[in-house]
Amino acid sequence: MREADLIAKLTAHLSGRHPLLVTGIGDDAAVWEWNPQTYGLISTDTLHEHWDFDRVYHPAKYIGYKAATSALSDICAMNGEPLFLVVALGVPRYVSPAYLEALYDGLRQVEEKYGVAVIGGDISPARDLWLTVTVVGQVEKARITYRRGAQPTHLVCVTGDLGGAYAGLKILQREKAVFLQNPSIQPDISGFNYIVSRQLKPEARLDMVRRLRELGVQPSSMTDLSDGLAAGLHHLSTASQAAFHIYLDRLPFHEQTYKVAQLLDMPLSALLLYGGEEYELLFTAPVTAYERLQQEEQIHIIGFVKEGEGVWAEDSLGQVERVELVSWDSLLGRKDQPQAEGSS
Amino acid sequence: MREADLIAKLTAHLSGRHPLLVTGIGDDAAVWEWNPQTYGLISTDTLHEHWDFDRVYHPAKYIGYKAATSALSDICAMNGEPLFLVVALGVPRYVSPAYLEALYDGLRQVEEKYGVAVIGGDISPARDLWLTVTVVGQVEKARITYRRGAQPTHLVCVTGDLGGAYAGLKILQREKAVFLQNPSIQPDISGFNYIVSRQLKPEARLDMVRRLRELGVQPSSMTDLSDGLAAGLHHLSTASQAAFHIYLDRLPFHEQTYKVAQLLDMPLSALLLYGGEEYELLFTAPVTAYERLQQEEQIHIIGFVKEGEGVWAEDSLGQVERVELVSWDSLLGRKDQPQAEGSS
Repeated sequence: MREADLIAKLTAHLSGRHPLLVTGIGDDAAVWEWNPQTYGLISTDTLHEHWDFDRVYHPAKYIGYKAATSALSDICAMNGEPLFLVVALGVPRYVSPAYLEALYDGLRQVEEKYGVAVIGGDISPARDLWLTVTVVGQVEKARITYRRGAQPTHLVCVTGDLGGAYAGLKILQREKAVFLQNPSIQPDISGFNYIVSRQLKPEARLDMVRRLRELGVQPSSMTDLSDGLAAGLHHLSTASQAAFHIYLDRLPFHEQTYKVAQLLDMPLSALLLYGGEEYELLFTAPVTAYERLQQEEQIHIIGFVKEGEGVWAEDSLGQVERVELVSWDSLLGRKDQPQAEGSS
Repeated sequence: MREADLIAKLTAHLSGRHPLLVTGIGDDAAVWEWNPQTYGLISTDTLHEHWDFDRVYHPAKYIGYKAATSALSDICAMNGEPLFLVVALGVPRYVSPAYLEALYDGLRQVEEKYGVAVIGGDISPARDLWLTVTVVGQVEKARITYRRGAQPTHLVCVTGDLGGAYAGLKILQREKAVFLQNPSIQPDISGFNYIVSRQLKPEARLDMVRRLRELGVQPSSMTDLSDGLAAGLHHLSTASQAAFHIYLDRLPFHEQTYKVAQLLDMPLSALLLYGGEEYELLFTAPVTAYERLQQEEQIHIIGFVKEGEGVWAEDSLGQVERVELVSWDSLLGRKDQPQAEGSS
């Protein structure tokens, strides 16, 4: 069963009803009535050793950083501003206080960079290291953006570039394999610093949330790309009950990502569509915003919304194919064998 | 290092500053400015397999129930009303969807009983089963109760009864040992249903928060007894910079707890002072509330606050001894050896 299906099945057991609740499980964050002008937002996210990070090449400070920014990203995806973080940690015996301090230094960097505060915590003994970060945010009611809301003719946009986090992971795994075979060889990530940093120390696009406000652009639907572009497109398409049509040659990528696609002998488009953990924003906006969006270096118009259903990709020859929902599914696939990744 | 010391050390790495923040890490819940009349509250709590529960005798439904009520208890400890829960789960491969559904049924029972809503979730693959529940609540500013605030002459009160959860655990462990030696013998908890239920399916004392309001009693300091009475007394004493004097023969207990103390050949007072996971409320109140508190069946006046420092217990012969801070510390002691408890 896929994680999304499992969550849907489990959620059906809940009532999820409260007078102050506006939207519960099903979007990037839950939404409640804060005051007459403002909604409260809350979301939670876990990074778990072996599945989500490998302590061999992921420095503690960046693990803390990534756990926090990946949670903040959910608030950004609602067009909101994050306020507070609460951190629960599972800590194995072999993790030293100094290691945890480094991890907390990463949290502090996030506090400073994003203007948020870590205001609560819980530490449990555990067999593996894991972090659950819950984030509370706020958004003006007039600016809240759900996954639903995209309408035919609207532009499909993405921030930053795609596939870098996955490409960076591949480089890190390659260097780890070399190191395990011959510990005297030092890891070499030269030439791949950008994508390695996309994997180890990603940013939430709060800057883009603020930039859209400055531009006077109200997105009609939005999600983050934690599960990859294909999944994000499907989320918006399903929630908005509209078809999404994108142009593969408009997908933004970094040259280092391109190099990895070549190294791995993988189609670049597969990497851009399915590589997850991006924490970029995918959103739609009315065509009236075209001029304003077009001139933004960090925003790329990659397609449009149309009547119908599904996600469709057009290649440079004009051929259109359906994009299947193959998500960065943490309950399936490559992440299901922690033992195979060592260090257990 | 004890959990509290470790958390203090790690917290020192954080800034924890935000214009809306009133009180961060250090009380039962963090406090923020919700609106001019109301504070927001947030807290997080984890139940982790092997350390906090044993799937051999803890039914899935009650694991879900306990994870939620133990988190709600932190909001009650601030004299607040819980509103929303967000649940992060670590799920091993061998846990079936049906098992998770039972766990969610437990969460739903909590939704109904406490009038709260589960509004968000995250599921991660993991080696052990764990649940982190983060709870958001509210409290009128005039009614918020911190750990600080107790003053000399104030009454020290506790709700419900003490030591039952620990006594229930001992019965469950005894039955498990019998079962492991001879699987044909069915567990026998007859005569211990009350304390077993205190361990497996504890309640948060939201009813007491509401009752105190009805009585017009504003506690001067409060905490819950998740770490046991001795730890709770020390928390209030330290935060309030005052000494706490209690009478051992006033500590409330259930007859089943008394029976277990006899069975284990343990002093009853040790069980009442140090048994954790109670989720009862420990609070102080001005002596003017004496009459109103005295007539409440579920509230027990166990001592008083005085000038000085430390926690002092007087026995029935009038002998006074210092109560040491030995907490139900989840990073030390009996919970540090999951392997020894089997099923890993």
